[in-house]
Amino acid sequence: MIIDGKQYQSIWLDENDRSRVLVIDQRRLPFFFETRELCSVEDIYNAIRDMTVRGAPLIGAAGALGMYLATLEITGRTNVASHLNNAASYLISCRPTAVNLSWAVSKVLESLKGIDDPELLAETAMITALEICETERENCRKIGENGLPLIREISERKGGKPVNILTHCNAGWLACIDYGTITAPIYLAWEKNIPVHVWVDETRPRNQGARLTAWELGKQGVPYTLITDNAGGHLMQKGMVDLVFTGCDRATRKGDIANKIGTYLKALAAFDNNVPFWTLMPSTSIDFTLSDGLTEIMVEERDQEEVTMVEGYHDGEIIPVRICPDETRAGNWGFDITPARLVTGLITEKGICRADEESIGNLFSEKTK
Amino acid sequence: MIIDGKQYQSIWLDENDRSRVLVIDQRRLPFFFETRELCSVEDIYNAIRDMTVRGAPLIGAAGALGMYLATLEITGRTNVASHLNNAASYLISCRPTAVNLSWAVSKVLESLKGIDDPELLAETAMITALEICETERENCRKIGENGLPLIREISERKGGKPVNILTHCNAGWLACIDYGTITAPIYLAWEKNIPVHVWVDETRPRNQGARLTAWELGKQGVPYTLITDNAGGHLMQKGMVDLVFTGCDRATRKGDIANKIGTYLKALAAFDNNVPFWTLMPSTSIDFTLSDGLTEIMVEERDQEEVTMVEGYHDGEIIPVRICPDETRAGNWGFDITPARLVTGLITEKGICRADEESIGNLFSEKTK
Repeated sequence: MIIDGKQYQSIWLDENDRSRVLVIDQRRLPFFFETRELCSVEDIYNAIRDMTVRGAPLIGAAGALGMYLATLEITGRTNVASHLNNAASYLISCRPTAVNLSWAVSKVLESLKGIDDPELLAETAMITALEICETERENCRKIGENGLPLIREISERKGGKPVNILTHCNAGWLACIDYGTITAPIYLAWEKNIPVHVWVDETRPRNQGARLTAWELGKQGVPYTLITDNAGGHLMQKGMVDLVFTGCDRATRKGDIANKIGTYLKALAAFDNNVPFWTLMPSTSIDFTLSDGLTEIMVEERDQEEVTMVEGYHDGEIIPVRICPDETRAGNWGFDITPARLVTGLITEKGICRADEESIGNLFSEKTK
Repeated sequence: MIIDGKQYQSIWLDENDRSRVLVIDQRRLPFFFETRELCSVEDIYNAIRDMTVRGAPLIGAAGALGMYLATLEITGRTNVASHLNNAASYLISCRPTAVNLSWAVSKVLESLKGIDDPELLAETAMITALEICETERENCRKIGENGLPLIREISERKGGKPVNILTHCNAGWLACIDYGTITAPIYLAWEKNIPVHVWVDETRPRNQGARLTAWELGKQGVPYTLITDNAGGHLMQKGMVDLVFTGCDRATRKGDIANKIGTYLKALAAFDNNVPFWTLMPSTSIDFTLSDGLTEIMVEERDQEEVTMVEGYHDGEIIPVRICPDETRAGNWGFDITPARLVTGLITEKGICRADEESIGNLFSEKTK
């Protein structure tokens, strides 16, 4: 995406020194726009760990590029295979539940099998990692194209009045490599002069909506309004939401959706008010081994401090403030499950389908045979 | 309620100098427990305006005591009636939409009609204002008694395991004079050794849950866990909520409920998971002139900064931090409407009823004749 006149991805190689991976430091947004250089496997590990980079596709890409950096660290080593295997295990261990991370790391490792020459190893790793980035980017672009007609149709029905889209969390280009998933059709609509307006859920506890989605949309000039996570139901009751677009961490073959905590509440409100609720994702997020999201997907519990503290900008710096009594115990679940019955459909790079086993099976017949 | 061994109400007269109204400064909780002296009509006006006191019953009581303070300001005035009328208008103008405020102020003004003697005016105003406080207090106590059997029944069904109650915002004793509405049955259950545990919604944008409900429950020793407003749906899906208790700003004669923004989302989740959703309130909150909450109750829009900024404790003081880009536009609606079809019933000082016109009519037959 273009930021202040310059083209960016959320991760890229330094043009002048291709042994350096560059990323936007997402912990500092929206208050400071800073890039970080990651020059070693350990740098990549730490950047994922400390949330400098986040979002499933971006974490996968970072892991893949981490494997490329591993190939640059083999000079003088006698057991190259063992070094690469260790690097892969180390990177995956950083976020053991992140499917994209282990998938991308393994894919690069696989591509290096049978190669001994250090230069060829590095070149192969780089090509594979960049291919992974390019595929993610291309998938998002296609999600945009597949989602655009939904926005266009509503725009036409409304006689060109802005299409109001509500979103939760950040499934924008910052979470991906470029375009984003839920933002891809929005950016495309905006480019094509279809008026849109986005209701941005702040998305407690980490406020990815307020911090990242708001920043992204603002930088592209897309009109948006920040709201608390409590407000969406009221807006839908008042006819102020035309579409809900959310991302997805994992979907079952029957169309249940695991996504950021609070997604289920928005899906309930959308259903109650006949507002279409679409989930946008690369098809790699569908886990065809899963049938029932509620019983089969484990919901991770996270640090209590994410709830008891809020981070924000004050007097030139980013600081945390405590919002409750000192001794407060907090519960912090990372995501929730939206049952397929509340989901209008899935928008993927392969096309659109309803959120049921038959429609998903038809769209991905190669996976369900 | 007893705080650190001492009995408090949320508003009271100084025992040693009955021309001083004392309140707990709710802007400073939970970080600092401080009382404020209010010694003039203007002090009362400012305390309501700047949220030193908040909550419908407490605002009403403050207004009533403000009228009492007005009677202490008549020395040397020639037109006493005009002074009192002006004081009443001034106090009501502070929060024109607060039904309790205008009701309580008018009630004191009414009680003063035909009285000329300054001492008798002051005494009458004081008695009427304190009666209003006592009635609110007594109503909350009765709400507690009427709600207790619901908790007891679940406790027995669960074989004495803690009854998990989810609540939104603060409808505790701080918002009332004593006991609170939703907290009254909880405190009563706790007193009677019925194990309870409260899920406290933080309740953005102003975080009354995190700041006030958490503080209240903690001070009474009632176990609670703070959660984001996004988490309740997940907890209900997992069977971790036995009851939802919310307060109510205004109810229609058919049982629609206006309450803090986000209440509707919790009601949807409760309905979807067969969790009983009860609204607790003094019967004065039922507006028998209203039929359809969604079309007849105006939802106020509040200051954008409540959304873009979060206030919290940092390094010994309470400070605001900005959570989004500088130029962010935010939407901030004060409450939403929960349709009666999602409400299990109302718990009032007069008893319990279902949230429909017939049941409400039966319980309040004197109002609907």
